[in-house]
Amino acid sequence: MVKQERAIQTRKTILSAAARVFEGRGYKAATISEILTAAGVTKGALYFHFPSKEHLAQGVLHEQDQWLPVPERACKIQELVDTVMLHAYRLQTDPMVRAGVRLSLDQQAHGLDRSGPFTRWAEILRDLLEEARSQGELLPNVVPAETADVLVGSFAGIQAMSQAVCEYQDLLRRSSHLLRHLLPSVAVPSVLASLDSSESRGETISTELRTLMSQEREPAAG
Amino acid sequence: MVKQERAIQTRKTILSAAARVFEGRGYKAATISEILTAAGVTKGALYFHFPSKEHLAQGVLHEQDQWLPVPERACKIQELVDTVMLHAYRLQTDPMVRAGVRLSLDQQAHGLDRSGPFTRWAEILRDLLEEARSQGELLPNVVPAETADVLVGSFAGIQAMSQAVCEYQDLLRRSSHLLRHLLPSVAVPSVLASLDSSESRGETISTELRTLMSQEREPAAG
Repeated sequence: MVKQERAIQTRKTILSAAARVFEGRGYKAATISEILTAAGVTKGALYFHFPSKEHLAQGVLHEQDQWLPVPERACKIQELVDTVMLHAYRLQTDPMVRAGVRLSLDQQAHGLDRSGPFTRWAEILRDLLEEARSQGELLPNVVPAETADVLVGSFAGIQAMSQAVCEYQDLLRRSSHLLRHLLPSVAVPSVLASLDSSESRGETISTELRTLMSQEREPAAG
Repeated sequence: MVKQERAIQTRKTILSAAARVFEGRGYKAATISEILTAAGVTKGALYFHFPSKEHLAQGVLHEQDQWLPVPERACKIQELVDTVMLHAYRLQTDPMVRAGVRLSLDQQAHGLDRSGPFTRWAEILRDLLEEARSQGELLPNVVPAETADVLVGSFAGIQAMSQAVCEYQDLLRRSSHLLRHLLPSVAVPSVLASLDSSESRGETISTELRTLMSQEREPAAG
């Protein structure tokens, strides 16, 4: 058990180092020996967990698109808003998420399948939209798979623009604007009227999740 | 005059070569000597037009964001749709436009100011939205600068997703879906009802422009 925990820790150390190297140098220019130096682990340990540069990149991509489930909401469109705004907040604050997003947009990463994160995020949002439909939250003409693709694609661009223009400083504002532009074509008016898609939403959810997790770890006595 | 035409042609040859090299290798890995070889011009000619790699990249970025004005429309929102759909069509069909868009999203291009194309496209769309406002085409709550930013950012992502998933094959469909999701939050219903934002719109405008240009070159006799 202790051994397994150590392996998990080593894997995490390697992935953090790989994220830093890929973010700084891009997929193509990055080398395994740079990642090795940055991680400070043995060559054996690195190759045990990740046999190639592509495996390292897929590891980083996977961390990024590991969906952090938001607390369930009665209103599924609110849950979708929460998912997007939490991702924006994590992108601004978590280097691993940032590295994954950058890799998935790295046009020089030939030979690296970058479609995964796009596809998986689209699935998560499509499922939420389908739940929303069954609860009568969607406008009749909405096609969940189409709307999910528009949401994922447009969010990818909003974050790239925010990075190019001001290194993510205005990402939360831009994300909120995007949702306010897209959702009126998606949700019925009564749902729209009750949504919270404000800039601070991502941080609110992040705090809520941390509180929930610490409660799970320390169950109340009695 | 002939000399000037030759200089324009040389500049064009160099930019095409730079576009191919930047697209294939990325900004960071590309070298001036590769561009020199690809262009087949003398070192002196290249340095005369572009004294550095950054100048070459800015040249390619500038070609991309050189706005190809679409024919004027009575409905300014249609002119905006035409602008977006023509850009999508050019992106699919013109390697220079593609290279410029890729450079503006190249996260490894440290030291290259990539905010220009985002900012300039946002200005073009903001101006169209302001004209639309003065003609009563916009919903009252629309802020033209905000909506222009959402349009530019989300389009950048839609094209990146289309590239990552299928090398631009579905770009026109995705662009049309994006507009159909965004415009109901922007334009009044009577404008929406009369818009053509179909997938084939970009090609239609491109043909229209070619016809207009050939008419200008060969004015009808009499």
